[in-house]
Amino acid sequence: MIAAYSATSQARVNAALETLFNAPGPELARLYEAMRYSVMNGGKRVRPLLAYAACEALGGKAEQANGAACAVELIHAYSLVHDDLPAMDDDDLRRGQPTTHKKFDEACAILAGDGLQSLAFSALLDPRLSSCDAETRLQMVSALALAAGPAGMVGGQAIDLGSVGLKLDQKALEYMHRHKTGALIEVSVKLGALASGHAAKDELKSLQSYAQAIGLAFQVQDDILDVESDTETLGKRQGADIARDKPTYPALLGLDAAKAYALELRDQALHALRPFDAAAEPLRDLARYIVDRRS
Amino acid sequence: MIAAYSATSQARVNAALETLFNAPGPELARLYEAMRYSVMNGGKRVRPLLAYAACEALGGKAEQANGAACAVELIHAYSLVHDDLPAMDDDDLRRGQPTTHKKFDEACAILAGDGLQSLAFSALLDPRLSSCDAETRLQMVSALALAAGPAGMVGGQAIDLGSVGLKLDQKALEYMHRHKTGALIEVSVKLGALASGHAAKDELKSLQSYAQAIGLAFQVQDDILDVESDTETLGKRQGADIARDKPTYPALLGLDAAKAYALELRDQALHALRPFDAAAEPLRDLARYIVDRRS
Repeated sequence: MIAAYSATSQARVNAALETLFNAPGPELARLYEAMRYSVMNGGKRVRPLLAYAACEALGGKAEQANGAACAVELIHAYSLVHDDLPAMDDDDLRRGQPTTHKKFDEACAILAGDGLQSLAFSALLDPRLSSCDAETRLQMVSALALAAGPAGMVGGQAIDLGSVGLKLDQKALEYMHRHKTGALIEVSVKLGALASGHAAKDELKSLQSYAQAIGLAFQVQDDILDVESDTETLGKRQGADIARDKPTYPALLGLDAAKAYALELRDQALHALRPFDAAAEPLRDLARYIVDRRS
Repeated sequence: MIAAYSATSQARVNAALETLFNAPGPELARLYEAMRYSVMNGGKRVRPLLAYAACEALGGKAEQANGAACAVELIHAYSLVHDDLPAMDDDDLRRGQPTTHKKFDEACAILAGDGLQSLAFSALLDPRLSSCDAETRLQMVSALALAAGPAGMVGGQAIDLGSVGLKLDQKALEYMHRHKTGALIEVSVKLGALASGHAAKDELKSLQSYAQAIGLAFQVQDDILDVESDTETLGKRQGADIARDKPTYPALLGLDAAKAYALELRDQALHALRPFDAAAEPLRDLARYIVDRRS
């Protein structure tokens, strides 16, 4: 059951994350509070779940991926804080709560986001959170920097902002999503796999195919939910993307074809996991959940 | 002569930095252009110089510190881009040129800054830029993440923003500067020293004392120049800090006492370098230059 696995993962990563927000002095209390507020917000922790599940799929213990799980969640959190800023998406609500720049102020939100990115790299190397050999850790840092950076997530945000009001075709839309959300989902799986200490090259490749498929499925389903859900369930304004004339799969393909595409991507993800045994079941459950979820 | 060493360091780090701004695709051209614009702006490259000079002081070749030099400059550049944003210092000019959000737009500047931070970690590990053993590289990543993050530079920015209009005493002012500018200067020296492959513990400690002293001297002199220089020489509005009622050393100590304090810090820095031979001469020259410079 993905609900149980998800709850366990959430509790595990939340406990690990909580250790990271102790301000070194009273002068820094507000910044740390803003960072904590941006992270400890009841998020679903999908990326940490992926890190834990990938680690377990390769025979590792979930705890070994604590550093990886915190790192990807911190990157995700920082990207949301900056994405919500007035100069970007200008959102007042995130999961039903005031966004960081609304709760604190804009300057504080910029700095909290900046600090969370640094903290992600610190978390990845934090000996309290996990341990593995130096070469593996370096691979993890390189992969995270690449996935989070201008050739990854930040690049995707830039493409997204540049494409508002444009008529993107499916190829261009997927290029954007592969960067904006896909890169971090892929690296969540990769870091978790590396943290197991048993990641063979072909296994990493299979897991990458899995991650690419669910990353896209996640986005297609998000677009579908943006059309179908009401504001209360979603915790943000329903139809927000369409209202801003952002390119979406339902707008591009039609709603029914978008739903069929999400299912196809789920099947691709499950196919990529064929080489793995029962230890990969949480990854499979997640692939199913992504296209079934209602928020 | 520090002018010659500085010119060589600038050329070396600029050549290394130039390799980092090739957009992977046309969709990302504008983001990479904004990052490049933010970095390749004729900056003095003081932090790279420190990395190179620390590496040479310990018997390394300057080139070994290319990754470190790029990394610290990228962090510095990103912090300036975000610091100049309307929600922060709201500056239109930087080194006489439009700031990144003026030249591009605010969203692009936020993302360019975010991307530059990721790129700094990539640069530190880039095998094209430098190589050293995995354990040393990990030490470098940890040190950079700590220095750049909420317990370092970002924390200093937060304290600085929170102290506008407040009457800070000298202790509080130095706490702010130790974070805002000192942490990155310290880590520039540390990463350069580590890149040499010959950094003994006591040598790192001496270099840390040196870096702390020049970091503070740099700031005291900046405050003095803010009072004394004209806008053309400085490339930003003269008296900008005082106009915003930011705490400064001249405001706190008086101009003459601030100048005497800068000289005292220079002497502390030179004292810390006593264990080193002639290879540390560029570091000594820099300490002298910092309090002599007019811009």
